[in-house]
Amino acid sequence: MAYPYKKMTSQDCDYIRSVTAPDRVWAGAEIASEYYRDEMPEYGVYQPDLYVEVVNKEEVSAIMAYAYKENIPVVCRGAGTGLAGGATCKYGGIMLSIMRMNKIFPIDRKNQTITAQPGALLIDIQAAAAAGGLFYPPDPGEKTASIGGNVITNAGGMKAVRYGLTRDFVRCIEAVMPDGSIMNFSSNVVKNTTGYDVKDLIIGSEGTLCILTEVTLKLLPAPTCTCTLVMPFKSLEECADMVPKVLELPFVPTAIEFLERELIDIVERNLNKMFPVKEGEAVLIVMYDASSKQELDSAVEAAAEAALANGALDCAIAGTPERAGAVWSVRGGILEGMKADSVAQEECDVVVPRARIAEYVKAAKKIASAHGIRVEPCGHCGDGNIHTEMLRGPEMSDEEWKAATHASLTELYALSKELGGQLSGEHGIGNGRLEFLEEFVGPRMIQLYKSIKLAFDDKLILNPGKVIEFNK
Amino acid sequence: MAYPYKKMTSQDCDYIRSVTAPDRVWAGAEIASEYYRDEMPEYGVYQPDLYVEVVNKEEVSAIMAYAYKENIPVVCRGAGTGLAGGATCKYGGIMLSIMRMNKIFPIDRKNQTITAQPGALLIDIQAAAAAGGLFYPPDPGEKTASIGGNVITNAGGMKAVRYGLTRDFVRCIEAVMPDGSIMNFSSNVVKNTTGYDVKDLIIGSEGTLCILTEVTLKLLPAPTCTCTLVMPFKSLEECADMVPKVLELPFVPTAIEFLERELIDIVERNLNKMFPVKEGEAVLIVMYDASSKQELDSAVEAAAEAALANGALDCAIAGTPERAGAVWSVRGGILEGMKADSVAQEECDVVVPRARIAEYVKAAKKIASAHGIRVEPCGHCGDGNIHTEMLRGPEMSDEEWKAATHASLTELYALSKELGGQLSGEHGIGNGRLEFLEEFVGPRMIQLYKSIKLAFDDKLILNPGKVIEFNK
Repeated sequence: MAYPYKKMTSQDCDYIRSVTAPDRVWAGAEIASEYYRDEMPEYGVYQPDLYVEVVNKEEVSAIMAYAYKENIPVVCRGAGTGLAGGATCKYGGIMLSIMRMNKIFPIDRKNQTITAQPGALLIDIQAAAAAGGLFYPPDPGEKTASIGGNVITNAGGMKAVRYGLTRDFVRCIEAVMPDGSIMNFSSNVVKNTTGYDVKDLIIGSEGTLCILTEVTLKLLPAPTCTCTLVMPFKSLEECADMVPKVLELPFVPTAIEFLERELIDIVERNLNKMFPVKEGEAVLIVMYDASSKQELDSAVEAAAEAALANGALDCAIAGTPERAGAVWSVRGGILEGMKADSVAQEECDVVVPRARIAEYVKAAKKIASAHGIRVEPCGHCGDGNIHTEMLRGPEMSDEEWKAATHASLTELYALSKELGGQLSGEHGIGNGRLEFLEEFVGPRMIQLYKSIKLAFDDKLILNPGKVIEFNK
Repeated sequence: MAYPYKKMTSQDCDYIRSVTAPDRVWAGAEIASEYYRDEMPEYGVYQPDLYVEVVNKEEVSAIMAYAYKENIPVVCRGAGTGLAGGATCKYGGIMLSIMRMNKIFPIDRKNQTITAQPGALLIDIQAAAAAGGLFYPPDPGEKTASIGGNVITNAGGMKAVRYGLTRDFVRCIEAVMPDGSIMNFSSNVVKNTTGYDVKDLIIGSEGTLCILTEVTLKLLPAPTCTCTLVMPFKSLEECADMVPKVLELPFVPTAIEFLERELIDIVERNLNKMFPVKEGEAVLIVMYDASSKQELDSAVEAAAEAALANGALDCAIAGTPERAGAVWSVRGGILEGMKADSVAQEECDVVVPRARIAEYVKAAKKIASAHGIRVEPCGHCGDGNIHTEMLRGPEMSDEEWKAATHASLTELYALSKELGGQLSGEHGIGNGRLEFLEEFVGPRMIQLYKSIKLAFDDKLILNPGKVIEFNK
């Protein structure tokens, strides 16, 4: 156990400067406050003792070896777009930014892969793949995220129905261990049963096991055409029941999202965006990608037929980029619309079995309403990953809001568990969901998580107090 | 550290009988010798002290809790079809068979999943999925394997190019820990960022971390049509260079295999099976699945065009089940053909980057030939997973064969590493490849593997001496 950590001294700062460069190191009050937090300051604002921007793995290794010897906590930070309060210096120490390590290497055409340093932006990876006529599918919405952040949180997103998660595209990882060792987890191969699958354990570990210094990602041939369908239904239940019908068709959809009418109204009212389909209490939005017009037409026809056979009031086909844009613009405007429609927001990111979506949404509304909060569940119907946004009304005091969200979250997580779901579908645990994790997974699992953490980080110096907390 | 283990007493056996049933427990010489080994007796033959056939997770839990307390090793065994010497009692103790736990539960249509106990056979899982109009794609050849064995070794197989590995179909795992705790790793959800991804660490851990008692598997809509193409080339290099060209097309192939002419000759000569394509020193076999005839035709047309544009001497389309059967029958007869053509065989299961396949094959032949051994590399060209079969000639003595295979394997693994490959693509480490692992992954990785093993199994009682060895 490493608590309490060493309080950093000026000698420590000098050492870090000596193994990096003085103009890439900031200490104490020099550190910009944006590095105190991620996108969710609600989940913790902490000042680092030192902020350093590294440029290569050797620097990362030297810093970690020193921190290991000196018992100083280190937190790796990417673009800071996380939603779980993960990349923050909860116990002070060093914040290590990998954003200058942003090289993207040329596409490896024969292996259909791309290799990049962790600070490369997702949007630049996608562009580099596209420039080579290939396709990097994971698309978690936040395009200015770093690819390292995407890998270390196993970023999801809408297109997971067809393509899977970030995990499914990671061929191999180069990383620095807490003691400074530089390691390679797997290599540019398609399958591997050589020893334990450490690579997959690292993916989604939220910076608590090692620091990524390079990743190699699988690419796919780009689909050549795409189409979006909007299926309005009389009720949420009918809408949710349509999901397995869509998935049973022999065409795998790219995305399946749902929107309830009141959420559409919020976006229309606040952002002046118009949703092209006016009917239905709930709409299912289904997107198909295909490699030929024929294949696309077959998929669209089969889905439209299935929709009308299963209670859809209509099936609008947004075949042109403009029409599809109108649909996705409303879907993409949800968070902004909700922000304009409320004083504050809190989010619950549960994932439930697809079969239980409607049940979850109904019960979630009841729970929040009993605590005086409005919720607007929306999201990834094809995944069962329902972003349950809680909206604060202007009449609520800080204390009321805090108490009501806490009580609601406690019940929502219990509900998810009861339905066979999980606590977090894609945003992770970080600091923000930590207090709910033990209740959710139980003490034996927490014990196992702790053993795993210690297997990598026996001195607990890497992003301490995230995902699991030893110090209590 | 738990070495040396307790030598089992008659009291221990009585206890195991008391928590299971006397007619499902065998001790000492009563134990059938088939349970001393898996499909590769070369990798170890060990008599268990006790053999028990469990019927539920409570029995597994009671046995593990007792073994944990008493310091007795336990090895879980499925169908015994492993190829790495994994499921054997290297340190004596209890062999626990899960083959009576073979229930397959009804398909969950809304979630498109199937749940089964670990002793269910792969062939029965595939049949149950098909009976429900769905499809369980992983197909590692050995259909009488248990599904638990498939999951715990992350079984691969030919269709991995399109569908992925067993890993990609495991939604959740119920398992018993070495201390007897019954745990659930994930649930029937599509994405999950709740804590560490323990599920993926367990997949492929070869029975060294926990004992599976139930698995839930993802199913897909079944493809409705399929076609096989045979592309003969003048040289292996041209054949291997075709692989990325196939993968660049907008149609994802189901399987890409390669055969060299001398291997085809071996099968034709020994098994009297005729390969329909007579030209070419090396042939690429490409299979497409599709959900419509149109889609299939587009894929086949594009692939054939690409083949002829890239040096194929021809492109034979095996469009009927009979013609495709003739092709796959020769591919499927390789192992049998090689067995008929040699006195003994040893296998190297490396995986290399797709771009390095031809280079690997050429060098592998040189290496083995320098040690007086004939090798016939074949296999999964789409994966880079080249099964490098070594064939013993009648003139070699036992000692010569042993020395030559050991020397060849050492060099082949070094070659794979040099080319950016891995030690094992799908057969795993078990006992048979253990001696080569440390050299391959290095001491720091072995240290990490050991820490991970201890995080699950602090007394080292679960399948000891497999994947990693503490006792040396």
